[in-house]
Amino acid sequence: MDAPADPAFAQRCRESFGRQQAMALIGAKLELVEPGYVEISLPFRADLTQQKGYVHGGILGMIADTACGYSAFSLMPAGSSIVTVEYKMNILAPGRGALVAKGEVIKPGRTLTVARAEVYADDGKHVATMLQTLMMLAETPDTP
Amino acid sequence: MDAPADPAFAQRCRESFGRQQAMALIGAKLELVEPGYVEISLPFRADLTQQKGYVHGGILGMIADTACGYSAFSLMPAGSSIVTVEYKMNILAPGRGALVAKGEVIKPGRTLTVARAEVYADDGKHVATMLQTLMMLAETPDTP
Amino acid sequence: MDAPADPAFAQRCRESFGRQQAMALIGAKLELVEPGYVEISLPFRADLTQQKGYVHGGILGMIADTACGYSAFSLMPAGSSIVTVEYKMNILAPGRGALVAKGEVIKPGRTLTVARAEVYADDGKHVATMLQTLMMLAETPDTP
Amino acid sequence: MDAPADPAFAQRCRESFGRQQAMALIGAKLELVEPGYVEISLPFRADLTQQKGYVHGGILGMIADTACGYSAFSLMPAGSSIVTVEYKMNILAPGRGALVAKGEVIKPGRTLTVARAEVYADDGKHVATMLQTLMMLAETPDTP
Repeated sequence: MDAPADPAFAQRCRESFGRQQAMALIGAKLELVEPGYVEISLPFRADLTQQKGYVHGGILGMIADTACGYSAFSLMPAGSSIVTVEYKMNILAPGRGALVAKGEVIKPGRTLTVARAEVYADDGKHVATMLQTLMMLAETPDTP
Repeated sequence: MDAPADPAFAQRCRESFGRQQAMALIGAKLELVEPGYVEISLPFRADLTQQKGYVHGGILGMIADTACGYSAFSLMPAGSSIVTVEYKMNILAPGRGALVAKGEVIKPGRTLTVARAEVYADDGKHVATMLQTLMMLAETPDTP
Repeated sequence: MDAPADPAFAQRCRESFGRQQAMALIGAKLELVEPGYVEISLPFRADLTQQKGYVHGGILGMIADTACGYSAFSLMPAGSSIVTVEYKMNILAPGRGALVAKGEVIKPGRTLTVARAEVYADDGKHVATMLQTLMMLAETPDTP
Repeated sequence: MDAPADPAFAQRCRESFGRQQAMALIGAKLELVEPGYVEISLPFRADLTQQKGYVHGGILGMIADTACGYSAFSLMPAGSSIVTVEYKMNILAPGRGALVAKGEVIKPGRTLTVARAEVYADDGKHVATMLQTLMMLAETPDTP
């Protein structure tokens, strides 16, 4: 992966993630931030489940979405912001137990970045795969 | 839309939705269930937001995903269960305020069903659109 | 749909379509151009088929892709160009006989536009649905 | 990748590909068939291009679609057939020159298979990435 435009990329990602109250709500943690790559962990909780007791597909989407987002954000210059344009996710297996979402930039760009995330269960099972498009907003604050 | 295979479809959907603890976690409600069509409402809460104060894209995904799912489930026979195969969502505008997700079957099928959901804000803004594929599991309990 | 930025939008779309040699190769015609909406027809030919004799899924994708593209291009200012960022298509039924792809902008934007296309067979069957993201390139020629 | 259910998988894929008249129309060749993996090549031709002289995005979709399809078909039992349920493709760079589409199964399944394809130009550029869902039709002829 290319060198990040912002040497303080990891701290910038962690601060931004820290403002995502929705991540706190579900108990997700940003475990690792490297240039163009992040990992987000999600411990199992009963209140994250769907009608059959598996982690809700939308919760899988939340951590995959966020993993794609910060993998892209890690490569962007300080002072920029990012929006999710769209994503597509295939659910490959029911989400059981603790999960990790691994997001990776596959095509960085000045305006648009394409990223991919894989979600794995703690037994190693491949639970979901996401392909996402993000847009950088130059010189736009990443705060409310 | 075709007549549902199960006359008790609405109650079956409501009971299933009631077992989705993730929907309770975010405060989503199943407002309307018709054959092949459902509406889910989501009041605004600060703990549903991302770093800029908008409703998290993954939360938009959760209600759109669930709206697609129950629109499909409403047409399925009693005793069946359903899994989300995949979905793709475009975010069209930031999610501000209370939201509603309207899910609709566009192609029912014996094995696979294709559904679409539109997410709107309470000011009428079109916030997101989702296209989803679901698979019916015949004679499979919809419980843990 | 909003008024197009370029009053000569229809002619601009037709000239651009006329340069798409791939459309000529498969025999597709641009039948209708309105602001934010186009229709492309495709007569059946045996050399467009896959192994079972239906129109190839990739050919369905070609006309749906192009219908989305020109629906978006119709709303753009003179002197701009357009690129397809991504698309997702569900195939709903085998493609038999002559087809029409109807493309429509669902969210115009300064940089990004989201469009949808529906493909129908001449017996009225809904064959495919596509959701697509496009990016405008301002002041960029739409020629080689 | 798992061992294929049909030892004659490669010949079965080649015969099926040979019946795809749309592949002949565009000049695509099935170069390699391994269990769960195939490569399709596409020499450049002017009649495959869009309005700016690049290979048409829908043509990229055709070879990616077909590469996903035969990667999945290679793992299926003799006597079965396959349909494309849906796919999503991101275009990462303009398609220039000769192309190759590399399709790979990422989750084989009894009913549904998920596959991915990457399209590269002959200068090594990553041109497109596709994520696709396919459904096996057991004991269904793969012929018209």
